Amino acid sequence: MRPSKRKNAQLRNISIEPAILRHSEGSCLIKFGNTHVICSVTYENTIPPFLRGQNQGWITAEYGMLPRSTTTRVKREAVHGKQSGRTQEIQRLIGRTMRCAVDLKVLGERQFIIDCDVINADGGTRTAAITGSYIALHLAISSLIAKKILKTNPLIKQIAAVSAGIYNGHPIVDLDYLEDSNAEVDANFVFTSSGDIIEIQSTAEKEPFSEQQFNEMFKLAKDAVAELFILQNKVLLGL
Amino acid sequence: MRPSKRKNAQLRNISIEPAILRHSEGSCLIKFGNTHVICSVTYENTIPPFLRGQNQGWITAEYGMLPRSTTTRVKREAVHGKQSGRTQEIQRLIGRTMRCAVDLKVLGERQFIIDCDVINADGGTRTAAITGSYIALHLAISSLIAKKILKTNPLIKQIAAVSAGIYNGHPIVDLDYLEDSNAEVDANFVFTSSGDIIEIQSTAEKEPFSEQQFNEMFKLAKDAVAELFILQNKVLLGL
Amino acid sequence: MRPSKRKNAQLRNISIEPAILRHSEGSCLIKFGNTHVICSVTYENTIPPFLRGQNQGWITAEYGMLPRSTTTRVKREAVHGKQSGRTQEIQRLIGRTMRCAVDLKVLGERQFIIDCDVINADGGTRTAAITGSYIALHLAISSLIAKKILKTNPLIKQIAAVSAGIYNGHPIVDLDYLEDSNAEVDANFVFTSSGDIIEIQSTAEKEPFSEQQFNEMFKLAKDAVAELFILQNKVLLGL
Amino acid sequence: MRPSKRKNAQLRNISIEPAILRHSEGSCLIKFGNTHVICSVTYENTIPPFLRGQNQGWITAEYGMLPRSTTTRVKREAVHGKQSGRTQEIQRLIGRTMRCAVDLKVLGERQFIIDCDVINADGGTRTAAITGSYIALHLAISSLIAKKILKTNPLIKQIAAVSAGIYNGHPIVDLDYLEDSNAEVDANFVFTSSGDIIEIQSTAEKEPFSEQQFNEMFKLAKDAVAELFILQNKVLLGL
Amino acid sequence: MRPSKRKNAQLRNISIEPAILRHSEGSCLIKFGNTHVICSVTYENTIPPFLRGQNQGWITAEYGMLPRSTTTRVKREAVHGKQSGRTQEIQRLIGRTMRCAVDLKVLGERQFIIDCDVINADGGTRTAAITGSYIALHLAISSLIAKKILKTNPLIKQIAAVSAGIYNGHPIVDLDYLEDSNAEVDANFVFTSSGDIIEIQSTAEKEPFSEQQFNEMFKLAKDAVAELFILQNKVLLGL
Amino acid sequence: MRPSKRKNAQLRNISIEPAILRHSEGSCLIKFGNTHVICSVTYENTIPPFLRGQNQGWITAEYGMLPRSTTTRVKREAVHGKQSGRTQEIQRLIGRTMRCAVDLKVLGERQFIIDCDVINADGGTRTAAITGSYIALHLAISSLIAKKILKTNPLIKQIAAVSAGIYNGHPIVDLDYLEDSNAEVDANFVFTSSGDIIEIQSTAEKEPFSEQQFNEMFKLAKDAVAELFILQNKVLLGL
Repeated sequence: MRPSKRKNAQLRNISIEPAILRHSEGSCLIKFGNTHVICSVTYENTIPPFLRGQNQGWITAEYGMLPRSTTTRVKREAVHGKQSGRTQEIQRLIGRTMRCAVDLKVLGERQFIIDCDVINADGGTRTAAITGSYIALHLAISSLIAKKILKTNPLIKQIAAVSAGIYNGHPIVDLDYLEDSNAEVDANFVFTSSGDIIEIQSTAEKEPFSEQQFNEMFKLAKDAVAELFILQNKVLLGL
Repeated sequence: MRPSKRKNAQLRNISIEPAILRHSEGSCLIKFGNTHVICSVTYENTIPPFLRGQNQGWITAEYGMLPRSTTTRVKREAVHGKQSGRTQEIQRLIGRTMRCAVDLKVLGERQFIIDCDVINADGGTRTAAITGSYIALHLAISSLIAKKILKTNPLIKQIAAVSAGIYNGHPIVDLDYLEDSNAEVDANFVFTSSGDIIEIQSTAEKEPFSEQQFNEMFKLAKDAVAELFILQNKVLLGL
Repeated sequence: MRPSKRKNAQLRNISIEPAILRHSEGSCLIKFGNTHVICSVTYENTIPPFLRGQNQGWITAEYGMLPRSTTTRVKREAVHGKQSGRTQEIQRLIGRTMRCAVDLKVLGERQFIIDCDVINADGGTRTAAITGSYIALHLAISSLIAKKILKTNPLIKQIAAVSAGIYNGHPIVDLDYLEDSNAEVDANFVFTSSGDIIEIQSTAEKEPFSEQQFNEMFKLAKDAVAELFILQNKVLLGL
Repeated sequence: MRPSKRKNAQLRNISIEPAILRHSEGSCLIKFGNTHVICSVTYENTIPPFLRGQNQGWITAEYGMLPRSTTTRVKREAVHGKQSGRTQEIQRLIGRTMRCAVDLKVLGERQFIIDCDVINADGGTRTAAITGSYIALHLAISSLIAKKILKTNPLIKQIAAVSAGIYNGHPIVDLDYLEDSNAEVDANFVFTSSGDIIEIQSTAEKEPFSEQQFNEMFKLAKDAVAELFILQNKVLLGL
Repeated sequence: MRPSKRKNAQLRNISIEPAILRHSEGSCLIKFGNTHVICSVTYENTIPPFLRGQNQGWITAEYGMLPRSTTTRVKREAVHGKQSGRTQEIQRLIGRTMRCAVDLKVLGERQFIIDCDVINADGGTRTAAITGSYIALHLAISSLIAKKILKTNPLIKQIAAVSAGIYNGHPIVDLDYLEDSNAEVDANFVFTSSGDIIEIQSTAEKEPFSEQQFNEMFKLAKDAVAELFILQNKVLLGL
Repeated sequence: MRPSKRKNAQLRNISIEPAILRHSEGSCLIKFGNTHVICSVTYENTIPPFLRGQNQGWITAEYGMLPRSTTTRVKREAVHGKQSGRTQEIQRLIGRTMRCAVDLKVLGERQFIIDCDVINADGGTRTAAITGSYIALHLAISSLIAKKILKTNPLIKQIAAVSAGIYNGHPIVDLDYLEDSNAEVDANFVFTSSGDIIEIQSTAEKEPFSEQQFNEMFKLAKDAVAELFILQNKVLLGL
């Protein structure tokens, strides 16, 4: 039995509150149980130097945690003077997956900067961040189209993400911190709503895992993101 | 007339939502109009090296802004690799003033770390942060006493802060961003509930100011914090 | 047809030259075609602070590229003042996977530091680094046992890694730079010699990929590492 | 009685030696008793990027201490790799107050950089730095006008600064280190020679202070700067 | 007798393997006994900002050591976040001496970046780096002329370097680590093949040295570099 | 003829003002013409970690320039966030040479930190710094012996330094900035008062130099430091 008492295939309670920031082009507060992340999208009519003249746009992401989003306070990275390897790994993942959601050629020489800031952390912050970033990006693009700043919609894919793992020998989905820190295997899956895969990361934390175990985690994750896509659409439709 | 249509002595709508963070010993989300700050207190049973063996405690503070708390996105300080001079000035102010709220000898060789993170910025973030930090600190201390981690209450002063300024020649209180960026003089006042002063900072932004103008700002600020003390107590009493 | 003219399942020419460094406890120069990496293991009779008193050992890894290992010179990270996100991601991967190769409890309060330095880069540096690090670690442990510095062999798994991808719609293995930079999907697989999985990373670079495509890459990688395990053993046996 | 044996309203011996640096457009060595600061002004025919095209000039300041200006050697900030919060707070104060001394529109797209370097420290370095910077700035502007590099004099205000405090319950002015480190309240005042205020900073170090105490410090400071203005003018007139 | 059993005037076995890097315009692996250094030259059709418009070229150098090139692992400078003073001193020396090998006016507004990376360290890495950099530079220039990227040969001097020292009262040449760490005096000499001097550095490590001792070291070094010039030419002639 | 109109063997006017800093154990302001350097010695009853338990002392040095010590303002290294390669090279030289002045075994587990800060720069700052540091060190040791903090005098050598160069084909001594920046060869010599050599650095800036030219510079430098030793002794004797 999972520490969270959830069934193996059961997501936590998930909520998405759109437009949480007053200045951002698109934002939301997404909650996977006690994991709370503010996702924000900034639109800029510029492009990073390495892309100039290539007639395409860009999406990049930054990730951070409030120092006391965790049980024991983590050092503020701005004080420490650099982002940790974990932070960089996560923000690179978010940026990379979100770039798959848009047609960068259609976007043209413009960029979106996604900020994911964790207010409360209880496992699965990176998958919550990706799921919420899709909402923030959709809201931003809708708003920019409404304001005629964007003429064509560059959004081409709906994206959501969820974690899975092997806990006590059993495959489970959407691990909270207690489950995550005791799991034998930790995996993250990013899917499109058409059932294709954007990213798979699966890591043996204690024990190597079999192909069958991987396939079970994959199945759990794929079913779970189907629920997330429905929830995303409800939020975007104002339901 | 003020851009905000408020009267010269009128505060913005102010609300304080306690216990916003799940892990912090004490926290709140304080709102001065569209300025929203999460204040959090961490208790540690240690002391900075420079205070060891002096039989007293310490309070320190850190301040940050979400990159998109502002109209134009500000660079994430963790990416830039250092805190700006402004950030350091503000967090030094918060730490210094909050140390006046407690008897550090009674606290003993323990420390509180205060984190103030701005979610939305619309002027007056440092005074909102101080006013909210008092709530977070009070909640943390109450909780630690309830858990018998602290035996004696080290809190000795109630503290609140507000900004004032000279706008178009007139003294006004609690400036929003539009007012602040056009004011001739910008001031911050930190008071105790017994009417004494913890800190005064008053700066000519465009024009030097007279002693009389300073006294008018002082009067406005002192009256305004009286309202803040009442509000703080309501929140702490659960009213 | 692949730019490298290789068959889809065909590895590059691979060679491993052991004991390339004069001072290291264990080292090798591993070549996957034109990708050349020096792997080195340092033994230290200490443990990182966060593990003290837990009666277990540790393995950590660092990764670097000579500035002119690449077609266009990359900036020296020591001059730039920090390691890039890519570098940190790779060295975290190497350290994490190599920790699965040993029983950290048996190792006791000691650590291995693995250094992987790329002399020439032509795609697949991280999987070459992992495959070579196993050799360097095995050599180091054998030497430490021979010198009676280690009493018990902590090595419990044989590990190797290889990349795979979808190129022009077809699954291929062990991509060189030209293939990698034009692939639709990029994946890295780390296996044990008993056929279990240590790590899977699979990323849509241009297009999302299907479950079937993933399975084809998985199959190619699993077959390829079987060849790598044979090669590793030949080198270790001095054949 | 003050440790320095001075009367409450009595300044230390103050001297200003102009033109101490051979290359600077304007410089002086200012001494408030044992506090010695070299103030230097550099003129540049450029403007910071954020001000381009706004048809105005700029003044910025940097502050530093020789490592052995203090009783116990302080770490060299260039070795430590960053300026402390205290240093940044002081140099922001110097820059901000000196910008009030000139008409930035008249200055046009040019800037002055003020360097204040403390040779010996005995309390009140920031107020000595401001008082000396006015001299250095005046000398630089006179020289630039003489060389016809500046056509119009942008200097519009004479500025000086002094500290005050509450020591043992009594208001005193121009605190040396011994007084400063034991004072209950520490304040800094920057005035114009026409009696207006540029900046007030007043901080409870140990005990909150009353409005009356603040007013007494204000009075002491205002009287003291009147003496400083006379001294500044003597130096500028070569008397 | 020297620890290395060599005669006082005897160099270690020296070998130079050209074209060790696949992408570099010119490179070699130079070995002075157990000191192994990869030297690489990068050609860039640009010039550092401080030289723009001066109608001349530039040569700069960077130096690094693999963490386990030494008996005890040295910290990776990219992780530490900065290059050590020793590293900077060495790379400044390499760049400065190599600039003497070319006519920067003939080179025109182009630059060479020299990277010297130590694979194994056993004393004399900086002199090996200079001697190898000449080979790498010569190869790069020949290749660029062959490709008609350079029209005129900017190379005007042949350069080589060697160390000398006073060990146990006797002058010796080309010190290995054991000799170097116990020598009373440590010196480095850079010569041109026409017998002129590019750089002399001679340092008392334990005891001041006499003019006569210096002259003896000078003589040893001058004779030794004559051998190095012959070896360099053999390598360049493919003998 | 030299730009300074001096004879080839002629030093600039040199003065040394002792005890310029109020808190330092020993200090002086040394002037070589328009090159002015404050040298300060700090005594600490500790030792760097790498020397613990070796029963010996240490001397280290730090060097800095006031931003406006030069014709064009140089960036403050504390703002830039690191010391330049030149700064590190110079401070390593000062520390290394001053360690030759004392018997580190006699000093015991204590250290001296030497700070050399350039107030005005006109060439030869490093040799002025070394010559002045000897004075500061002598004063510090005398004072510590007088206070019975040191029981035995660890000073064993008198040290002074001077620059030389080849200017317009002629050897000259003690170059000012104008001479230095146009010299073909730049050299620095550190001697003991008994005529032995501590350090030689001689660098071809434009043209390689002959052995004879080097010997002429050596002779000029040796004669010049003889004058410096006399001056040092006069200052130390209070003459």
